Amino acid sequence: MHWQDMTWPEIGALDRERTVLVLPVGSVEQHGHHMPTGTDTYLATAVSDAAAALVGPDVVILPSPWYGLSAHHMHFPGTITLTAETMMAMVGDIVASVVHHGFRRIAVVNGHGGNAGVIDVLASTLGHRFYGAARIACLTYFTLARDAIMASRESKHGGMGHACEFETSLMLHLHPGLVHQDRAVVHYPDTGTPWLSTDLVNGSIVRSFVAFDDLSESGTFGDPGLATGEKGERFLAMSAEALAAFLKDFSTWPIPETRP
Amino acid sequence: MHWQDMTWPEIGALDRERTVLVLPVGSVEQHGHHMPTGTDTYLATAVSDAAAALVGPDVVILPSPWYGLSAHHMHFPGTITLTAETMMAMVGDIVASVVHHGFRRIAVVNGHGGNAGVIDVLASTLGHRFYGAARIACLTYFTLARDAIMASRESKHGGMGHACEFETSLMLHLHPGLVHQDRAVVHYPDTGTPWLSTDLVNGSIVRSFVAFDDLSESGTFGDPGLATGEKGERFLAMSAEALAAFLKDFSTWPIPETRP
Amino acid sequence: MHWQDMTWPEIGALDRERTVLVLPVGSVEQHGHHMPTGTDTYLATAVSDAAAALVGPDVVILPSPWYGLSAHHMHFPGTITLTAETMMAMVGDIVASVVHHGFRRIAVVNGHGGNAGVIDVLASTLGHRFYGAARIACLTYFTLARDAIMASRESKHGGMGHACEFETSLMLHLHPGLVHQDRAVVHYPDTGTPWLSTDLVNGSIVRSFVAFDDLSESGTFGDPGLATGEKGERFLAMSAEALAAFLKDFSTWPIPETRP
Amino acid sequence: MHWQDMTWPEIGALDRERTVLVLPVGSVEQHGHHMPTGTDTYLATAVSDAAAALVGPDVVILPSPWYGLSAHHMHFPGTITLTAETMMAMVGDIVASVVHHGFRRIAVVNGHGGNAGVIDVLASTLGHRFYGAARIACLTYFTLARDAIMASRESKHGGMGHACEFETSLMLHLHPGLVHQDRAVVHYPDTGTPWLSTDLVNGSIVRSFVAFDDLSESGTFGDPGLATGEKGERFLAMSAEALAAFLKDFSTWPIPETRP
Amino acid sequence: MHWQDMTWPEIGALDRERTVLVLPVGSVEQHGHHMPTGTDTYLATAVSDAAAALVGPDVVILPSPWYGLSAHHMHFPGTITLTAETMMAMVGDIVASVVHHGFRRIAVVNGHGGNAGVIDVLASTLGHRFYGAARIACLTYFTLARDAIMASRESKHGGMGHACEFETSLMLHLHPGLVHQDRAVVHYPDTGTPWLSTDLVNGSIVRSFVAFDDLSESGTFGDPGLATGEKGERFLAMSAEALAAFLKDFSTWPIPETRP
Amino acid sequence: MHWQDMTWPEIGALDRERTVLVLPVGSVEQHGHHMPTGTDTYLATAVSDAAAALVGPDVVILPSPWYGLSAHHMHFPGTITLTAETMMAMVGDIVASVVHHGFRRIAVVNGHGGNAGVIDVLASTLGHRFYGAARIACLTYFTLARDAIMASRESKHGGMGHACEFETSLMLHLHPGLVHQDRAVVHYPDTGTPWLSTDLVNGSIVRSFVAFDDLSESGTFGDPGLATGEKGERFLAMSAEALAAFLKDFSTWPIPETRP
Repeated sequence: MHWQDMTWPEIGALDRERTVLVLPVGSVEQHGHHMPTGTDTYLATAVSDAAAALVGPDVVILPSPWYGLSAHHMHFPGTITLTAETMMAMVGDIVASVVHHGFRRIAVVNGHGGNAGVIDVLASTLGHRFYGAARIACLTYFTLARDAIMASRESKHGGMGHACEFETSLMLHLHPGLVHQDRAVVHYPDTGTPWLSTDLVNGSIVRSFVAFDDLSESGTFGDPGLATGEKGERFLAMSAEALAAFLKDFSTWPIPETRP
Repeated sequence: MHWQDMTWPEIGALDRERTVLVLPVGSVEQHGHHMPTGTDTYLATAVSDAAAALVGPDVVILPSPWYGLSAHHMHFPGTITLTAETMMAMVGDIVASVVHHGFRRIAVVNGHGGNAGVIDVLASTLGHRFYGAARIACLTYFTLARDAIMASRESKHGGMGHACEFETSLMLHLHPGLVHQDRAVVHYPDTGTPWLSTDLVNGSIVRSFVAFDDLSESGTFGDPGLATGEKGERFLAMSAEALAAFLKDFSTWPIPETRP
Repeated sequence: MHWQDMTWPEIGALDRERTVLVLPVGSVEQHGHHMPTGTDTYLATAVSDAAAALVGPDVVILPSPWYGLSAHHMHFPGTITLTAETMMAMVGDIVASVVHHGFRRIAVVNGHGGNAGVIDVLASTLGHRFYGAARIACLTYFTLARDAIMASRESKHGGMGHACEFETSLMLHLHPGLVHQDRAVVHYPDTGTPWLSTDLVNGSIVRSFVAFDDLSESGTFGDPGLATGEKGERFLAMSAEALAAFLKDFSTWPIPETRP
Repeated sequence: MHWQDMTWPEIGALDRERTVLVLPVGSVEQHGHHMPTGTDTYLATAVSDAAAALVGPDVVILPSPWYGLSAHHMHFPGTITLTAETMMAMVGDIVASVVHHGFRRIAVVNGHGGNAGVIDVLASTLGHRFYGAARIACLTYFTLARDAIMASRESKHGGMGHACEFETSLMLHLHPGLVHQDRAVVHYPDTGTPWLSTDLVNGSIVRSFVAFDDLSESGTFGDPGLATGEKGERFLAMSAEALAAFLKDFSTWPIPETRP
Repeated sequence: MHWQDMTWPEIGALDRERTVLVLPVGSVEQHGHHMPTGTDTYLATAVSDAAAALVGPDVVILPSPWYGLSAHHMHFPGTITLTAETMMAMVGDIVASVVHHGFRRIAVVNGHGGNAGVIDVLASTLGHRFYGAARIACLTYFTLARDAIMASRESKHGGMGHACEFETSLMLHLHPGLVHQDRAVVHYPDTGTPWLSTDLVNGSIVRSFVAFDDLSESGTFGDPGLATGEKGERFLAMSAEALAAFLKDFSTWPIPETRP
Repeated sequence: MHWQDMTWPEIGALDRERTVLVLPVGSVEQHGHHMPTGTDTYLATAVSDAAAALVGPDVVILPSPWYGLSAHHMHFPGTITLTAETMMAMVGDIVASVVHHGFRRIAVVNGHGGNAGVIDVLASTLGHRFYGAARIACLTYFTLARDAIMASRESKHGGMGHACEFETSLMLHLHPGLVHQDRAVVHYPDTGTPWLSTDLVNGSIVRSFVAFDDLSESGTFGDPGLATGEKGERFLAMSAEALAAFLKDFSTWPIPETRP
């Protein structure tokens, strides 16, 4: 069920109480020597699709606006970034439109670490703006599934960062033609401080801007050499299962009434 | 050549003087009883792809951010609209990013009548902002090809408006599975004034907001009954040819130097 | 009937159903060696006044805020430009104020090519914002009257661009003391591409920023040598007639009701 | 010397060190039963013109954008208001344009009490923004000349507020055809507190929003019955003299150099 | 009664009709060689507290957001400035929150000359925005008490400007440990024009940006040598008395009803 | 070392390479029946002070702007909230000012869960904006110290949420006069879903807006009954130690050079 492939009467007929809308967000940014710039959005969309397949027809996927916050990758050609203000406005307009049509549960499914802060802010601001009309949930799919992913990974800390064991496996499974494993560079970056981690599923408590090329010439953080398509299939399954479990629960969340 | 499918070294190796970047923009909005909400973006992307195929590897297509200005369709479920300010910021950020990487000619290829004003403003504001660094060209593909389209159409004035002979033909050719011709409604809307036209390729000189449902219960403006896939193939060809001709010319436009 | 010359009880007594308000917008920008920077606003105001005289007391003219979008002329001293955001806010505030007072039909009458995109956006955004309360129409007077003007012109394509046969004639008729015909420079600019036209009434389908001094040292596009006051009188009459015809029609447009 | 009446070569030839540009700002708002809504802008412009005549050709007057901050008059039809943000953007764009052309001394001459705060903010923000390039001075003409005006007035405290002895006299002198003395209402408003004054030239230290119709049914604050054209001629002369004295001094203010 | 020290049930129990909320605003900026950067906020807060003590429990003091508009001091280290837009948004959000909770009279008590314009604009914009719900009053405490201060000062014109006889006396009384009288520099700045005054309580009618270091190497305007703690005690008393008198009056101002 | 208590020459003399500036941010919002609205800012400031005492004179504390993002508490009187845009602008202006004065390492120390997203965004946007000039680090003190806090707590999951064992203990130690333990309500809220946690140091992966009064009538999340001043002393020590350890490390972070 993709919103962009449905007619308006079909969308109009959706049950407003049962339907959960999913907006995948990602990024267009460098993903090392071996992976395409669209990786994050490809993955957020694929995980959303796979979760929807598990949940059934009450999940409808909105088209992803593709771009996200990637200022930290801008020293590499291929990266395109929105400002935080633009991304907040863009997602805000999309959510406002579907709430206007009566939809009551919208999940923003993020596939890009750099968007984590802004979707947290969006959860607050949109949740407050549409209080009484709709619930907005924002999450990053690999954080949601992090226990399963951690149990499954082969690389040590730092091996899953960016264009790494995890993302490369998923892309090998989903879009093998877009991955150039022969060009992959393995790189465990050294942040020079224990307070900054580059691991995708074990991020830093302290938040600070790091230009990726200050830590990695190739743009890779981690170990794409450990990636396989088969592993990607498993990562996809565990990500989709975690997301599906959440979406099922989310569809039952009550909508509080606005105070007079 | 799709930007989202290329690695950063591949994008980094593109010849900045010869490469033309194309950003397709469209909308997510009602397209009658028989066509999907993603129609405009599907078409802007398909025409861009087809034109790129004609021109060759110097054209690279950016991923479309999908959403556009559709306030005039908001009475129909399925429509999602950005504000003009959001769209200006979103396209502005995308263009700023690619200009930062040294690209010098960017064409915004629009597939939605409701975006015509805002891309005109973007041509001015971005052209001025990046004067000396890059040229920005903005166009609507069916306006660019309007002479050929006019010569080819069967419907009379008003038959090509929205979800009409033209758009339905293109979708029947490109995405037949998404078109439900059996549900198509033929409707020549009456604006009640000679000063407002609903024709896609013969628009109004006077600009004024019209809510689509004030003129059409189904959301259709025009005659989808005249649509065929074969006709869509021809419309695609003529649109792609017009766009290709422009892009070839555009790639030779000089970049003036900034005044000191 | 000029708004700025009326008392509040006089304005309060205007029939809200019959009155059409006209807001002339233009620019303050270079107009060649022989014409004053205020030309566009002088002309938009004069055409509005002349049309109002034809229609009668139901048309009331608001004072023009003088400034418009003129970034493409900023290499010439004398040019003053607003940003698109400022112009949208400024016109938006003016329209919001008169709608607050119950006025229901507002026409923005533009006299400057560089404003064409922004008034198109304003037609959409203000039309949507005040849907159910008021209709907003935006137009450029010389585009409205372009058939008559084309039939009347002597210059070939390119002769009517900026500070040209057309504008100089009008100014010679209306403000002869501000025109220095002895300094006028005739210049048919060469854009170097068939896709960019400089003709006032036959503009480009492709929109792209052009700094005027890249095409014309004097700032003139066209043939002021063909201008005469007598021709200006005729251009004024045909512009006013076209505008008057529109305004009469506009005064009868229905105001749709807001959806609940 | 009016900017809008000069050609660009004439403006280009102005001595950047000696020229002072004047931007008159006012309002479009109710001025009682007897005075037109354009009063404040008419007066700011007339005083600017008269001062320029006293100083000579080094003063050039920019066209007034007419509108100002008039939210406190919005309960009366005829009032049009900008928001503070719009006015700051609008004046900011105008000043930025002329500074771009090398002008170094710009005076904003205000004729409307409601603009006093915003021009104070503009003096700070624009002065800071263009530090090292230009000086910006902002003033209200009747405050500048308040000692002379106070010495000349006949009304007691409260008689000069809005559409009063002062403004009506000036309009009787300058635009007698726009004044309807037979409809004038004399009204000394009672603010109910010693902390809020309604006097034009003896304003309140405490600033607080007052809707004019809460204090005056007619919209008048003061005594238009004491107004005469002869008195207006004197008020104009003393206002112009004060402004001319300032402008002469202003033209000699040094432009500090930016810090490295 | 400090808002930040009360529980929500205590604040919830406050009488909405009788309570006046006070928001002290100041600045963090250079105050000469001898005074701390927090001076203005320390003083605005102390005067607010002292006035509240005189009025009684119906005055509740909000915590000061500390920062203000100090661009004119930015050439000195230690100065921190907000933009005007940020300050307007910040105070606007605070006032909107307390009006949401039903409070009806809010006084912004300013202790920094550089904030005078922006609080004037805030009085207008917030007063208009919350018309019918709350009254907003904005004032600068030393302007409110200027007659008493003038009668009490020893320095001649120019001696009370910044980090001067007045402010230093107050700080010697309130925070003697933060004042380094041995480093104080006496400086009567020369603006070079009669139209710009540097005196705290006799400001300029003409408003124009002045970088403080263009007039004073030390950052002092005036005569801290005349300051004593005993004098500061008196200045505090007269400031608090003036403010208390106003707050008592303010608590009785009627709240007009919104128009339908 | 408090910025607001230093003179500008003292601040000017600070070693730009060694000095770390700390900006404490918190909130003004309901903290149950027994704690003051200023709790979060009091605590962020106290932890910052205590950490500075451990590190030594190279840490300078900026004054806290007091207010934060508290929309989720707005149903309780006493809560004051900024919008996300305002907070981003406010912190952005403060950081821009100190970077202008040459400071190179700025830590935003947050004491309020509701600010977590926005400080994450600020870390990215300010880090990018000032890349090459300064490093910006953003953190929440109780997350930084969460391992020690977890080891020390007595309450089970849910007992540390808001106005709870943790915050009440700290306030009992720091400001016992502002805590009313006799009014404290113990409440373990039930979110109704495993995907939303209310625990201060074990937050939700899924982010979604929750109005506090939908889960707690008193506004308390957790167990203030377990709070003691002695425990607060320990919580303060472990928080300060964690922060001090970070600040020492932060002071050695390299400042990368801007790319040409």
